[in-house]
Amino acid sequence: MARLRRVVLERLMRYYRYLAELTARKPVATVTSAQVAEALDIDPTQVRKDLGAIGIQGMGRVGFDVCEVCRSIRVMLGFDQKYESVLIGAGHLGGALLAYSGFAAGFARYGLQIVAVFDNDKSKIGGKIAELTVKPMKEMKPLIRRRSIRLAILTTPAEVSQGLTDRLVTAGIKAIWNFSPTQLSVPSGVLVRNEHISVGLSEIAYHLKQ
Amino acid sequence: MARLRRVVLERLMRYYRYLAELTARKPVATVTSAQVAEALDIDPTQVRKDLGAIGIQGMGRVGFDVCEVCRSIRVMLGFDQKYESVLIGAGHLGGALLAYSGFAAGFARYGLQIVAVFDNDKSKIGGKIAELTVKPMKEMKPLIRRRSIRLAILTTPAEVSQGLTDRLVTAGIKAIWNFSPTQLSVPSGVLVRNEHISVGLSEIAYHLKQ
Repeated sequence: MARLRRVVLERLMRYYRYLAELTARKPVATVTSAQVAEALDIDPTQVRKDLGAIGIQGMGRVGFDVCEVCRSIRVMLGFDQKYESVLIGAGHLGGALLAYSGFAAGFARYGLQIVAVFDNDKSKIGGKIAELTVKPMKEMKPLIRRRSIRLAILTTPAEVSQGLTDRLVTAGIKAIWNFSPTQLSVPSGVLVRNEHISVGLSEIAYHLKQ
Repeated sequence: MARLRRVVLERLMRYYRYLAELTARKPVATVTSAQVAEALDIDPTQVRKDLGAIGIQGMGRVGFDVCEVCRSIRVMLGFDQKYESVLIGAGHLGGALLAYSGFAAGFARYGLQIVAVFDNDKSKIGGKIAELTVKPMKEMKPLIRRRSIRLAILTTPAEVSQGLTDRLVTAGIKAIWNFSPTQLSVPSGVLVRNEHISVGLSEIAYHLKQ
């Protein structure tokens, strides 16, 4: 099977979330591509194509088996595997991400588990956030190596993020979830996923201007 | 000029952020589409097309005037206007958004200002987050009306978000920045911008699985 592109992965995630929400409200056995398409404002042909790409065929007018779709997406995207991660930066955003990771409906259902949080602020080190004790930066590398951790979540100020990234990569990190407002350079084979929350403001400001 | 689509707005935002970061490091007068394209992993033709769509022409091999590009994007997207907003939900994520909105390099540079925060949790009401006092929900509608606020930021649990949305729309809200993990129904003319932080995990989990 060909490697899936980012836009396809993101749409699959949206289908998964939508179906999880739908079935949480009431038991539903099947769903049509038209239903999914309308709820998510996506073309129905695209929905069928995406599901086809991961080997799911609809049953004519009946639509798709909800359980099969959810299970296939979980396996295809890797949500059925657990992956431990470290969080760098114990500020507000770090706290929000930890809070999300703590409960079943949060990040945990996608396999993510945050096992340690690091900061270089002495007033934060030793304190607790969501049951984790904030550790000093010097313990970061040894812990990543000892537990073979492959994912790091960065919520640090822009000016320190590249230096930290270099250290994380040396320690063995293979993916960085970057909430720090800066572009990061990494060797090939390491994924950087940039989350720029402010991107949404482009659509909002433009709408309010009209 | 035709109304710009969401994907174009988001790319313009990325160009803007990139140029702001570039010039913060050292003074730069011009930039080529190839430079922007490489830094952001976008096709150079797309960069030129997007800038052309908002009336910016390059100067041959010299590229684009950085100041002109930034100014044009600011005006086109509406970042040069201030818009007041209310935040609903005083949890961790609400705190993170407030912290971001507080400093010049944060949301403020896109025109956003959070003027009030509301929650229905009695243990939070009256407390302070980033210099704002958490207010009870019953004060939400009167404040939105009194100050003619058009934007609301939702960080509430999924199960209360639709009810709140209905009240916000009645009060006059024209755009909702939705961090609540649920789809919202709104009348036409009201924009909902959904931020699903967990979407990024699709790409990360898939990468770590390989």
